[in-house]
Parts: sequence; structure tokens; C-alpha cells
Amino acid sequence: MLLLNLDHVAIAVADLDEAIERYRSRYRVEPIYREIVEQQGVEEAMIPVGGSYLQLLQPLGPETPVGRFLARHGEGLHHLAYAVPDIEAALAHLAAEGAELIDSEPRIGGRGARIAFVHPRGSNGVLTELVELA
Amino acid sequence: MLLLNLDHVAIAVADLDEAIERYRSRYRVEPIYREIVEQQGVEEAMIPVGGSYLQLLQPLGPETPVGRFLARHGEGLHHLAYAVPDIEAALAHLAAEGAELIDSEPRIGGRGARIAFVHPRGSNGVLTELVELA
Repeated sequence: MLLLNLDHVAIAVADLDEAIERYRSRYRVEPIYREIVEQQGVEEAMIPVGGSYLQLLQPLGPETPVGRFLARHGEGLHHLAYAVPDIEAALAHLAAEGAELIDSEPRIGGRGARIAFVHPRGSNGVLTELVELA
Repeated sequence: MLLLNLDHVAIAVADLDEAIERYRSRYRVEPIYREIVEQQGVEEAMIPVGGSYLQLLQPLGPETPVGRFLARHGEGLHHLAYAVPDIEAALAHLAAEGAELIDSEPRIGGRGARIAFVHPRGSNGVLTELVELA
């Protein structure tokens, strides 16, 4: 099987501290870590919920992908990420099935994971990430 | 703890059959059932991924909440749903924490579950559903 799990659901937020506090008080959940991922222009916090994570994403500036998303759409659901066992095999399969890859080769994301994004165009409007955990 | 699990991530789609076929061919996942939920104006398909579901939602017409979402935003991520053990207790807690409830009382959703929605306003732009499974 290609998908091991729903690794995370990402939410773009304007203020990471405020969003963490909201999730803490409303839902009694806590991030297990937060991390600046310079290459993606975000600070992220990962909150475990069941076997998946909520990933809260605050842009490092307005001229980042998440910064532009916030300017256009406001805060909200940003992308879905699936854990896969073999990211190169998954990318080759998706390309063969006609998916529009943003990253044709994996790069390093948060948690040191190998990641790649699939464009929302032709994917029911859903920006999709593949994650091969270290 | 208030949250048992990330029950599902919902995606608004224009054509449910086409979306199911896309997920089948790209990700090798299959719905375990589909259901028309008249009260919510949708036909939905539930696709297990790890311990959660993708929920594909096709509106039954343009004058439904998901129909209006499609007209405004196009296809894409629609809402997040958390499984809770006691939906009345969860709603009381959220109201006390200042969340704006769409449903102050549970109603019956897909799978015969008791559900309630929380407005995206004041919730980082995320339409949020609580689900107490039967």
C-alpha cells in the first residue's frame, strides 16, 4: 500500500503562540515540539491527535508560500500530508498517474523527514504532501 | 482528554465518482461506504487512511453549504472532525472557552453519529466538527 497513515493536517495561522494556546485551552492538546523550517519559510508546531498531527504553520514573512496563502485566504486549512514508506516510489507512481508534482525529488522538511508536495491543481484542490519519516 | 482521534478530514469535490477514482488510482485507497446525508445536503464517501478517514463530499445542489463552498472556493479542504467521547460535555467546554458553536445541540450525521459543528470564525479559519460515534 502506498499510504501508511495520515501524517498531519496543516493549518496556516497568523500567530503561532496564540493558536497553540487556543488548541491547548479548547481541546486540551499540546505541541510535542516546534521548529523553524527556513527552507519552507515557516515556524511549525506539531500537535499529536490520535495517530496523526495537527501542524500549525506561521509564515516567517509575507513573501513565503504560507505568507501569501494568509494574504489571499486568511487563516485556515492549508495541506494534507501522508506518510509513505518509499517517497521515490510514491512520486514515480503519482507522476505516472498524471499528478502535477511540485517537487519531483524529495527534499528535507521538518523532523528531518524527506518530503515532497503535489500541486492542488488536478488534485481536487488539495495541496498534498508526502512524508517519508527518518 | 477531550479528543479521542482525528476522525476525518473532509474535502469538497464537484464529482464524487471522479474523486473516488482519483484516490483509488493515485493512492490505492478505497471508500468503505458512501451515503447520502440529506440533512447536510451532501453525498459523502469515507476512505480509511491509517486511523482516520478522508471524507469526500459532493453537494446535492448549489444551494447547500458545500454547494456554496464550491461556488466560492472551488474544490478543496472543507473541515476537520474530531472524535469525542461525550459531545455534550465537549460543546459545553467549547462554549465556555468562547468558541462560536454552529450547533449548540448535537444532531445526527453520517454513520448515525451525533455531530456538531464549530464556526471557523475565531477558530483559525477552520470549520471544526465534533463526532460522537454510535
